[in-house]
Amino acid sequence: MINSRRRFVKDIGLAAAGLAILRPDQLFAAATADRKVRLGFIGTGFRGEGHVALALRRADTEVVAICDVDERMLERTTNVIKKSGKPMPKIFTGDNYAYRQLLEMKDLDGVIIATPWEWHAPMILDALAAGIKYIGTEVILGITLQDHWDVVKAVEHNKAHVMMLENVCYRRDVMAVLNMVRQNVFGEIVHVQGGYQHDLRGIKFNDGKNPPGVGVEFGEKAFSEAHWRTEHSVHRNGDLYPTHGIGPVAMMIDINRGNRFVSLCSFSSKTRGLHDYILSKGGANHPSAKVNFSLGDVVTTNIKCANGETILLQHDTNLPRPYSLGFRVQGTKGLWMDVNSSIYVEGVSKDDEWDAAQAWYDKYDHPMWKRWSKDTQGAGHGGRASACSNHARELSSSEDRWAGR
Amino acid sequence: MINSRRRFVKDIGLAAAGLAILRPDQLFAAATADRKVRLGFIGTGFRGEGHVALALRRADTEVVAICDVDERMLERTTNVIKKSGKPMPKIFTGDNYAYRQLLEMKDLDGVIIATPWEWHAPMILDALAAGIKYIGTEVILGITLQDHWDVVKAVEHNKAHVMMLENVCYRRDVMAVLNMVRQNVFGEIVHVQGGYQHDLRGIKFNDGKNPPGVGVEFGEKAFSEAHWRTEHSVHRNGDLYPTHGIGPVAMMIDINRGNRFVSLCSFSSKTRGLHDYILSKGGANHPSAKVNFSLGDVVTTNIKCANGETILLQHDTNLPRPYSLGFRVQGTKGLWMDVNSSIYVEGVSKDDEWDAAQAWYDKYDHPMWKRWSKDTQGAGHGGRASACSNHARELSSSEDRWAGR
Repeated sequence: MINSRRRFVKDIGLAAAGLAILRPDQLFAAATADRKVRLGFIGTGFRGEGHVALALRRADTEVVAICDVDERMLERTTNVIKKSGKPMPKIFTGDNYAYRQLLEMKDLDGVIIATPWEWHAPMILDALAAGIKYIGTEVILGITLQDHWDVVKAVEHNKAHVMMLENVCYRRDVMAVLNMVRQNVFGEIVHVQGGYQHDLRGIKFNDGKNPPGVGVEFGEKAFSEAHWRTEHSVHRNGDLYPTHGIGPVAMMIDINRGNRFVSLCSFSSKTRGLHDYILSKGGANHPSAKVNFSLGDVVTTNIKCANGETILLQHDTNLPRPYSLGFRVQGTKGLWMDVNSSIYVEGVSKDDEWDAAQAWYDKYDHPMWKRWSKDTQGAGHGGRASACSNHARELSSSEDRWAGR
Repeated sequence: MINSRRRFVKDIGLAAAGLAILRPDQLFAAATADRKVRLGFIGTGFRGEGHVALALRRADTEVVAICDVDERMLERTTNVIKKSGKPMPKIFTGDNYAYRQLLEMKDLDGVIIATPWEWHAPMILDALAAGIKYIGTEVILGITLQDHWDVVKAVEHNKAHVMMLENVCYRRDVMAVLNMVRQNVFGEIVHVQGGYQHDLRGIKFNDGKNPPGVGVEFGEKAFSEAHWRTEHSVHRNGDLYPTHGIGPVAMMIDINRGNRFVSLCSFSSKTRGLHDYILSKGGANHPSAKVNFSLGDVVTTNIKCANGETILLQHDTNLPRPYSLGFRVQGTKGLWMDVNSSIYVEGVSKDDEWDAAQAWYDKYDHPMWKRWSKDTQGAGHGGRASACSNHARELSSSEDRWAGR
């Protein structure tokens, strides 16, 4: 019982879930447990603050520790905690390794890591070394292939659980489509697509005070994500943030449950968007205008799977565009397209015509969505993502039935 | 004058156009020319018949020869010619090489080839060897890389012109978007997509009598395209038919006009659709059910261009789905998506919202569309494709202005 109570999700692979919505009365299965689940939070930037706020909504969790190096961010989060009326946790700050003191606390059940990407792998590894068995990370496990191998090996060695908190896996339409896949509505799945297509120019730059869309600073002079995230666009070229796309579709084709990725190939377009943005907002004489960005504006990746499916991923965060994760789930009987919210199922839809997807979503609402969604109202994330760790746990458990397929 | 009069399109590359609509009163520029343009047609299947019918609509062309090995197809086409009231052309038939007698006619200005794909390269090469300077082909030039090199070298050696008759280049929305690209509405183009996503199962199989959707025969026992096209799905795996997608987008990024393809990588999904179709329509005991198809149901190809753009192509012809060529044209200021008929342009469209594309199409209707479209009414191709060789010629001429970019 303790085991299942503490359980996040069994697989570190891609059985990802977000914590964007926490059902307030119970985080883990055993509502009858003798004590609350004690959580520590490393990183209390905007995203970490959100995680703390959600944990505070629950009756079965305690926020026992928080850690950040940025005083402003800590202050915001402690204000949230004060307002909740719950006890103030231990606060760790100072240098970049203050989180190690948090990990030394003896009675932590789990930690949530919401820090710059380059810190995920070392923090996960340190948490595992400190004996923590349940770790959630926002979102990727590391930034190199070696990071990921290091994490996988350490998790297995420590018999621990690391979960990528991929909230899109718990979007209502995505869960409905997963349910349709399981019920064979699309037939045998042969091809899937997803991506991260989101104009992040206003996130990658700011003026050091206001996060969204003002100023063209990044790095030392910038605030929030522009403080660290933009460096990845300077020095790296590739799909920097694949989980919004790959998380949901990987579940649909049983990755790490009888299927696996076999090979991939990425193509990257020229890079223009970030430099153009600097010119238009800061002018040609701004120091940022001298920076050469590595990240191509549109990065397209194909993946071949052991069971024969192909996956197409796209990463597109430097250009003006409406938000779209670009999902497509295609099988022998029909397909779903996210961009036009459409579904076609042979023999049901009119010949050669898309159905508006909403009626299909309504009909195939995931059982866990139906069961928990009322409890999570008000805990959403921009209307785009919603998740519940109950869902994650139950989904993982119900998904185990498919492991042999 | 003779030169420009006879001109189809200067480049054999990808300055493709269809002949699906021929403006009736003039095929070439010089309406004052002293004689009509004399055309021969190799292949009078459904597609070739359509080309003949369109040529018959014009006052400045003569259909002087037709050739096919299938008596039924020749009969259909001769009936069309009879109804037109125009003179009956010479008819060549018999064995597979009857077309060589057609090519020996002394006064042919050009030939249109609408035969099985595997015959395109040999017929083009034979036509060039016979001294024909203007050749249109429906659509691809050959089926191997060597075929294409052979054609390119022969065309250059003979100072001749071979045009892929890609009708989608002349779809109204596609031409409007090309016009938008030229007018810099999308800024600098960084990524484009297209494809051929069309449920062809009913085309790849029939019962030997009725072409669309009845029966699961192919090859010897089948009729029309199922007689030859399906063999390519048995023996080949790849993007078998890229021009619907690549033709339009290649023009938009100046391929062979200062830009070129540099490298590509294709991924192919498992193959299920054709076998499933045979099972559902013909049962497990039908001989076709024993065939192993090579062609993956969804083939996805990335291409990198010399000027830094990426191209994504998809070929998806074995599965039930609504028709969609899947265009996307994305630049530094905005993008067009075909599947949801949407356009986004920064500073014009509402933040993070798609515009319905129609108003943009109306505003940016291509000048050649505006000039010629009334003359071509009734000559369309399923509402999807429409083209005019006038458009092809003029577009080619106006596009030359961009050659140095």
